[in-house]
Amino acid sequence: MKFNLRARVTAEFVGTALLVAAVVGSGIMAERLSAGNAAIALLANTVATGAALVALILTFGPISGGHFNPVVSLADALEHGMAWSEIAPYILAQLAGGIAGTILAHAMFGLPLISLSRHPRTGTAQFLSECVATFGLLSVIWGCSRSRSSAVSFAVASYIMAAYWFTASTSFANPAVTIARSLTNTFAGIRPIDVPLFVLAQLVGGLGATLLFRWLVPTLPSFAKNVVLRARN
Amino acid sequence: MKFNLRARVTAEFVGTALLVAAVVGSGIMAERLSAGNAAIALLANTVATGAALVALILTFGPISGGHFNPVVSLADALEHGMAWSEIAPYILAQLAGGIAGTILAHAMFGLPLISLSRHPRTGTAQFLSECVATFGLLSVIWGCSRSRSSAVSFAVASYIMAAYWFTASTSFANPAVTIARSLTNTFAGIRPIDVPLFVLAQLVGGLGATLLFRWLVPTLPSFAKNVVLRARN
Amino acid sequence: MKFNLRARVTAEFVGTALLVAAVVGSGIMAERLSAGNAAIALLANTVATGAALVALILTFGPISGGHFNPVVSLADALEHGMAWSEIAPYILAQLAGGIAGTILAHAMFGLPLISLSRHPRTGTAQFLSECVATFGLLSVIWGCSRSRSSAVSFAVASYIMAAYWFTASTSFANPAVTIARSLTNTFAGIRPIDVPLFVLAQLVGGLGATLLFRWLVPTLPSFAKNVVLRARN
Amino acid sequence: MKFNLRARVTAEFVGTALLVAAVVGSGIMAERLSAGNAAIALLANTVATGAALVALILTFGPISGGHFNPVVSLADALEHGMAWSEIAPYILAQLAGGIAGTILAHAMFGLPLISLSRHPRTGTAQFLSECVATFGLLSVIWGCSRSRSSAVSFAVASYIMAAYWFTASTSFANPAVTIARSLTNTFAGIRPIDVPLFVLAQLVGGLGATLLFRWLVPTLPSFAKNVVLRARN
Repeated sequence: MKFNLRARVTAEFVGTALLVAAVVGSGIMAERLSAGNAAIALLANTVATGAALVALILTFGPISGGHFNPVVSLADALEHGMAWSEIAPYILAQLAGGIAGTILAHAMFGLPLISLSRHPRTGTAQFLSECVATFGLLSVIWGCSRSRSSAVSFAVASYIMAAYWFTASTSFANPAVTIARSLTNTFAGIRPIDVPLFVLAQLVGGLGATLLFRWLVPTLPSFAKNVVLRARN
Repeated sequence: MKFNLRARVTAEFVGTALLVAAVVGSGIMAERLSAGNAAIALLANTVATGAALVALILTFGPISGGHFNPVVSLADALEHGMAWSEIAPYILAQLAGGIAGTILAHAMFGLPLISLSRHPRTGTAQFLSECVATFGLLSVIWGCSRSRSSAVSFAVASYIMAAYWFTASTSFANPAVTIARSLTNTFAGIRPIDVPLFVLAQLVGGLGATLLFRWLVPTLPSFAKNVVLRARN
Repeated sequence: MKFNLRARVTAEFVGTALLVAAVVGSGIMAERLSAGNAAIALLANTVATGAALVALILTFGPISGGHFNPVVSLADALEHGMAWSEIAPYILAQLAGGIAGTILAHAMFGLPLISLSRHPRTGTAQFLSECVATFGLLSVIWGCSRSRSSAVSFAVASYIMAAYWFTASTSFANPAVTIARSLTNTFAGIRPIDVPLFVLAQLVGGLGATLLFRWLVPTLPSFAKNVVLRARN
Repeated sequence: MKFNLRARVTAEFVGTALLVAAVVGSGIMAERLSAGNAAIALLANTVATGAALVALILTFGPISGGHFNPVVSLADALEHGMAWSEIAPYILAQLAGGIAGTILAHAMFGLPLISLSRHPRTGTAQFLSECVATFGLLSVIWGCSRSRSSAVSFAVASYIMAAYWFTASTSFANPAVTIARSLTNTFAGIRPIDVPLFVLAQLVGGLGATLLFRWLVPTLPSFAKNVVLRARN
């Protein structure tokens, strides 16, 4: 079944909002409860983020593809999985959804609705980490794109759970989420000034994985077309 | 296969009892063992609740739909998934099952069978949290309702695990569970006086998600009929 | 495909040995590393046990049914799922496998191969806990018995993970595992003198669930026959 | 669909690199954040490794079989699942990928790219642990090899998560990963001098499981041929 653009863009907006609310909100809760033990806080943040991804991709994937991420939408367009004309509405919905998610998390925890982060995340190691994080994410998506819907949701969620721990940046891997996280001075935040480098690294990593999988599967030129990214059910 | 109402109501009673026993019992165990570290206690409570949901929805879903939640039953009736005449027995079974679950948990841990909670949970932030928690839960159910049974159980369990952390209320999202948790003065409790606001928020959030998905999927007017909520196998 | 009794009994022996090695071994590791925090130790024990159950039921389920548990085999025979003549070899393999698992765990951690537990687990609350634990386990098995193999493995593993926390006894729910755990004076142990009450409670709980599901699904008299318990693939 | 050797070897290289990056990187992050609590550090390391395995086997399994492990490739060749002529390129890719993964993890965390481990892991208990760890891993692979792709990925990941805790060696179970971990003086390291004994134990354990399953399933002589190990989708 094919959904019209308005429904799909709404799904991207609501899904990205709930995803960011989960990332930011669970960070606030974890910081409050963990009495300064950062490992326990990140473990709680990891479980909440992974679980949210499973639920949200299974919920909104059949409608919009469940991208929630401009790099995923761009890669999908690059491989002819969605029309370039739909890229702008998708990315706008993701950006707006992400910001709405931060505001929602703040409101649920009784905090000021917006607060710029003062958490520095910069330097070569962070840049490399975001490259690797997004390279891995797009590899997982392309590698699983012929699988059943539920496998993709578990693969993506599992990958992000792992990458929260094995990259030095805790794996943002998503420009919309990165911008949204610059607006919260809590556990999950990133200084606004550090956002551009993160986004650049994410684009580089995502492009690398897309090119790798285009080469890895040369006998299947329509590999990425009309598959799971948009019609996951 | 269609089960008769007596079997389905029994399944709702037993399933809700075991679910509440899992929520309350794991809270008692977690509080006893965690030496005052609230993050570890909530993490254990989260794992136990999510795991119980996976098991119980897979077990009782094929019989009764595995609602265990008056908001889910009401939404199902609203979308013509079940007859309104069955709503009263379903909700009574869920309420009675929830209370039985609290009593069972207390008995297993050698506590007085009923103890009114003194844990305050009130205010705007808590109200908003319960709205969001239940909005998300019903979105997940409607979004996955055409998926296979096992995907729904994992999606619901994953969502609740995330929402335990990303909402300030730790996501009750269920009037039967809320009432049952007012009868335990342990980790999972809520003051009886705070119950009505929680239930109101849950109804608002659940209605919002139901209306959203009715709009999101307009080309499928029977979207919610006779699907996974009642015939998940 | 039908396996001969020798292969099936071997599968029960190896599977139960690895299951008990996982329960006992992860308890030893958790106690060593957790610096006295019992909640973290039980959380690690929970994750290891649940993960082992997923892997072992998926691995040996297609061969022997993956019972690893005399109560499950007895219930299967009661519902005509397996011949009564096969009960003795199954249970002997489970008992021997469980003891071998304890010995194996001790050997891997450089401990004396057998050490009687001094961990008291007795009283009404513990008895009730084991009744509930095994009632729930058998409910999950009967409720899922018409599902696909992978759903059953996840349902059983999830249930046990929850029950580790929501019962006061940490949910042994298995006579072979209970006897094997009486032979280790480590985290997972139980005093030999407390074993009979545990086993009795497990039989009561398992019988209760079997009778409940025989009544719940009356229109399907062969409900339990030849299903997942023995031919899960 | 059959992929050419160059694509398959690339998949083994990239997959093993990301797997080792996940194991080593999450160990570094866990050690940094856990304030000396080894149980929390190992729990984080366990979650990250298991999640990475789910994602990477689902991603690269359809291309190369997702071995990432010389013992798995050797067992596959032994059972005629892949040609012996492909063993050398597979194992070289796994070894090179593993070393690349350690270097990548170090780079992401701003550490010197190579540092020999000083973590001693030797003795009879460690040898036995690695035998058991690899025996169990290969049992899981052979036992699930006729299942659907997603079941295999979850079974393998679950098994390794359990084995991190129930073996005294924390279950390396993979010669390529063992060698790669000798090059990092961090949480996940092993002294280079202890590597040969680990590799020997892994070969012994893997051979034992392969022979057991060859005997367990005698009526199916082509049991291991052309199945999940190479054509998992």
